[in-house]
Amino acid sequence: MNIINQQSPREIRQLIRNGEWHKPTSSLANGFIQANLAVLPKEMAFEFLLFCQRNPKSCPLIDVTEPGSFIPELSAPTADLRTDLPKYRIYRDGILTEERDQITDLWTDDMVGFLIGCSFTFEEALINNGIPMRHNEENCNVPMYRTSIPAVKAGRFEGPTVVSMRPMPEKDVIRAVQVTSRFPSVHGAPVHIGNPEGIGIRDLSQPDFGDCVTVKEGEVPVFWACGVTPQAIAMHVKPEIMITHAPGHMFITDLKTEEIGVI
Amino acid sequence: MNIINQQSPREIRQLIRNGEWHKPTSSLANGFIQANLAVLPKEMAFEFLLFCQRNPKSCPLIDVTEPGSFIPELSAPTADLRTDLPKYRIYRDGILTEERDQITDLWTDDMVGFLIGCSFTFEEALINNGIPMRHNEENCNVPMYRTSIPAVKAGRFEGPTVVSMRPMPEKDVIRAVQVTSRFPSVHGAPVHIGNPEGIGIRDLSQPDFGDCVTVKEGEVPVFWACGVTPQAIAMHVKPEIMITHAPGHMFITDLKTEEIGVI
Repeated sequence: MNIINQQSPREIRQLIRNGEWHKPTSSLANGFIQANLAVLPKEMAFEFLLFCQRNPKSCPLIDVTEPGSFIPELSAPTADLRTDLPKYRIYRDGILTEERDQITDLWTDDMVGFLIGCSFTFEEALINNGIPMRHNEENCNVPMYRTSIPAVKAGRFEGPTVVSMRPMPEKDVIRAVQVTSRFPSVHGAPVHIGNPEGIGIRDLSQPDFGDCVTVKEGEVPVFWACGVTPQAIAMHVKPEIMITHAPGHMFITDLKTEEIGVI
Repeated sequence: MNIINQQSPREIRQLIRNGEWHKPTSSLANGFIQANLAVLPKEMAFEFLLFCQRNPKSCPLIDVTEPGSFIPELSAPTADLRTDLPKYRIYRDGILTEERDQITDLWTDDMVGFLIGCSFTFEEALINNGIPMRHNEENCNVPMYRTSIPAVKAGRFEGPTVVSMRPMPEKDVIRAVQVTSRFPSVHGAPVHIGNPEGIGIRDLSQPDFGDCVTVKEGEVPVFWACGVTPQAIAMHVKPEIMITHAPGHMFITDLKTEEIGVI
C-alpha cells in the first residue's frame, strides 16, 4: 500500500495538481467519495442535468458547479476541477480527440462541471465486508462494458448504459447487494448479476473501458451502473466539446462515504 | 374511509380532471407516490433543477417533463399536469395571485413541469408501523412552517427550507426515523426532532401553510423537509410566472412507494 493512501483528499488533490500522480485513483483516500467528471457548455447543461436526474443509477449527481465556475462548492470548496484530476479526456463532436492532465485553457465562462458518484466509493464498503476487489488485487483498472440497457432519454442525450464489473464467489453476492444498496448516490445496488449476455455483453475478456480481470471458476460477475455512461452517451450526442475524467482517474471529494449512506 | 381510497391513481386523476375532487389528496391512492408540482419557464429550468439537485431533502425529484410537455412520461404517462391536480397556485413576480383547478390556458410551449416527492407518500409507511397521523385524525392538512434552515442556493434560487410537522409519542420517534430513512425520494429522514425554536419556528399553532394540529401532552413534534419549499423560494426569486400545486393538493403518480424504498 502506497503512502498516498494515508493522505487527505486535499493533499492528494494537491499532488495531482502538481503533476505528481497520474495513475487511477482506486483505493486512494479511503472513506471519501470519488466522482466522475463531465464538463459541458451551459447550452447543454439543462438537458444533461435532466439526463442525470432520469438515470440516477448510472449518473448519481454529487455536485454541479455554477456556470463558469470550476469550484465544486458543496463537495470540495478548495478544489479546482481544471487541474485536480489525474487524467482528462476531451471529446469533440463525439470523438475522443485527446487525453491530458489539465484542462485550464479549455475552461470557458459558460462551462458547467458535473460530478457523478463513482463505484470506487462503495468498494471500500465491500472490502470492509470481506469482498475483495479483483482489479485491486491485479493492480489494474475496473473493467467496464457498454450494455443493451438503454439509458432514459433526456432531450438530445440518449444511448446505452455502461456498467462496471466485479467478480465474486456466489456466497458473497447477496451481501454485495445489501452493502451497496445503502449508497444510492454512488450507483447503489447492482443492475445485473450473472449471465453477461443478459445485458448484451458478449465477451467479458474484452471490456469497452478499463482493463480485463480474472473471473475464477465458480465466481459470478456482478454489474453496477457506471459513471462512464455519459462518455458513451457523448458519442451519440456529439456535443461540440465535452470534457470528462479518463476512466478510473477520478475526482476525490471532501465528502465522507458514510455521510451519504441512507441508513 | 372514502370509496375514492380504493381507486387507482389513474381513476383518481380522472375524477380530479372531471372536477369531481377538490380536496387535499392525503391518504388517497395508498401505496402510490404523490408529488408536489412546480412549473417554470425553460429559461429558469436549469437553475431550478440545480436547486433541486442541491436540496434533495426538500426537493427530491420524481420526474421532470421535457420543455413544453405537460405529460410526466416516467411517473404517469397517461396524466396531464394541466388538469390532474385538485388545486393549483399561480405566482406572478413572487406573489400568489390566484388559485384554480386547472392551468390549461397558462401552459405555454416553454413550460417545464417538476414533480417533487411528497411526505404524504411516507405517511402510509408510518401508519403501517403503528404511528398515526394527527392531520388525518383531525381531517385537515398537515401543518407546514418556514424555518431558519437555509436551502442551498442555486443561481437565483435561494431562501428558507419549509418543513412539515407530525406530532408523536416519544416512543415512536426512533421508528419514525428508521421508516422514513428508507425513502430518500420522498424527503427521507426527518430534519429535526423536538424543540421548534431550534429551527426558527416560534409558534407551532401558527403554521405558514396547511392547518394547525393538536400536539398532546408528552408528544414530540417531528419535522420533515417539505416540497412546499419551492413556493417559499418563489417569493424570493420572483419569477414572472411560477405555477405550483396548492398545499396538500398533490399530483398522484403511477409509481409504487415500495419501488422507491432504498433497501
